[in-house]
Amino acid sequence: MKKLSTDQIDRALKEFPGWKLVNDMLEKSFTFNDFKEAFSVMTHIAFECEKQDHHPNWENVYNSLSIKLSTHDADGITQKDIDLAKSIEKIVAQS
Amino acid sequence: MKKLSTDQIDRALKEFPGWKLVNDMLEKSFTFNDFKEAFSVMTHIAFECEKQDHHPNWENVYNSLSIKLSTHDADGITQKDIDLAKSIEKIVAQS
Repeated sequence: MKKLSTDQIDRALKEFPGWKLVNDMLEKSFTFNDFKEAFSVMTHIAFECEKQDHHPNWENVYNSLSIKLSTHDADGITQKDIDLAKSIEKIVAQS
Repeated sequence: MKKLSTDQIDRALKEFPGWKLVNDMLEKSFTFNDFKEAFSVMTHIAFECEKQDHHPNWENVYNSLSIKLSTHDADGITQKDIDLAKSIEKIVAQS
């Protein structure tokens, strides 16, 4: 899996409002109504992560969820991160 | 819910190896075999949190889980944190 260039990342991020490149990771925070809703979305995302064999660095505090994506083996952002961000957006939109 | 004194916290922590008081939060990190195992334990803990109406600040990266507990309303550690730490230890021990 090849590391994407800054230009490639910028182009990809135009499709995903709210995602930002911070310290070489794609980052976005979400807020839900309560813990149950936040954890339900996390559970849905967790199954997608297993399917894609790609996992986030994520932090949850009650109704808030902060997600950071990067590809450890490539030491940067790859298409795997873009694909997972796309799936996360879809899951959150459906929640 | 009353904030516990440092002495009370120290006494309680003697029952929970690995838990430490860091920046006014009870903190412990756990490592599992893989993401699926880590998230399964998180799910079990999540149900317990809802039952106790008390929620952690927690971060997961693949097979690692870092948990921080404090009681926002009391601006410190209360019996609610001790109770949740006890439940988490039980859940992890059974996993």
